[in-house]
Amino acid sequence: MIRVFSIDVNTQKRVELVNITRRINEKISEARVRDGVVVVFTRHTTSALIINEDEERLKRDILVLMDRLVPTGAGYRHDEIDNNADAHLRQNLMQPSLTVPIVNGRMALGTWQNVFLFELDGPRTREVTVVLIGE
Amino acid sequence: MIRVFSIDVNTQKRVELVNITRRINEKISEARVRDGVVVVFTRHTTSALIINEDEERLKRDILVLMDRLVPTGAGYRHDEIDNNADAHLRQNLMQPSLTVPIVNGRMALGTWQNVFLFELDGPRTREVTVVLIGE
Amino acid sequence: MIRVFSIDVNTQKRVELVNITRRINEKISEARVRDGVVVVFTRHTTSALIINEDEERLKRDILVLMDRLVPTGAGYRHDEIDNNADAHLRQNLMQPSLTVPIVNGRMALGTWQNVFLFELDGPRTREVTVVLIGE
Repeated sequence: MIRVFSIDVNTQKRVELVNITRRINEKISEARVRDGVVVVFTRHTTSALIINEDEERLKRDILVLMDRLVPTGAGYRHDEIDNNADAHLRQNLMQPSLTVPIVNGRMALGTWQNVFLFELDGPRTREVTVVLIGE
Repeated sequence: MIRVFSIDVNTQKRVELVNITRRINEKISEARVRDGVVVVFTRHTTSALIINEDEERLKRDILVLMDRLVPTGAGYRHDEIDNNADAHLRQNLMQPSLTVPIVNGRMALGTWQNVFLFELDGPRTREVTVVLIGE
Repeated sequence: MIRVFSIDVNTQKRVELVNITRRINEKISEARVRDGVVVVFTRHTTSALIINEDEERLKRDILVLMDRLVPTGAGYRHDEIDNNADAHLRQNLMQPSLTVPIVNGRMALGTWQNVFLFELDGPRTREVTVVLIGE
């Protein structure tokens, strides 16, 4: 059985981590999938999806890391066209899609794992596609 | 329904981004999958798959970023064996596989999203496996 | 057909690459899946999954790279709570899940490709979920 859903995520800042775990699990409940996988996909080139602990200081550390590895406005050629090269580049160090097992009707996440949309060039409304494959 | 295809990609340079979006969509049309997911997988340890905008200056920025984060020949031990440690290491900052939703017979990519094979140690012929899961 | 398995991986060091290719292929044999995909997922926020060559010097290079990009104890705020921010941050530069095609009853890996659990805050017992989707 395959079901496709769409989730809109309204972000509030230029760079921000938004926990979307609950919203994905709601789609799994709605579709009554018991076992399988969920594919989560962000339809944008300036956002990413990651899994990590939902802890405030760690979330700040992730933003600082991205700032250090891919500083804003560091002479990128793409900034001549659209002032967001940092966002395009940062998402390539993470990923646009995540695949998570579904067991007993929920994502089989570990104790500390949460799924985040990583907004890298907001605030915007982001469209996240959720595909459920299961039985 | 599950269908497996193989795509050969001939790269021209040592480091290069090759847009393979159209070739993946052709396999989806050929298999007449309407809804599901496509798993794209590169069968090599010195190439990667990424999604980004197909814009010339941005593509140059991505190459420059990889050069800065993982410089060529920076004293890697693997270079004693095979002179391509940079390529092996760069792919680990990206990924060997991508999973993209299929909606209405095409990858459900956002407006600016394109799928690229990232050649990191070419020129070579690269084999990309495409698995379609859908109905 | 969908089958879910769990693999326990006992790691021996704080930071270490453990080749789990054979153990994943065993589950594929056990389930008699011929064609499809395998989703491999680590249920932890301080480990990752990568594909690379199983070569000793290269594996050392990967550890050195992670140490350089995300140094241990570099003033992370999360270290005030739990002394492992480096591990949380490093996994976000890689990924928690990998999807690999299955062809003829085995992962369709290239000649040099091996699947590794990347332990980033061990030693521990890590739980890796393996979902087989195929026929």
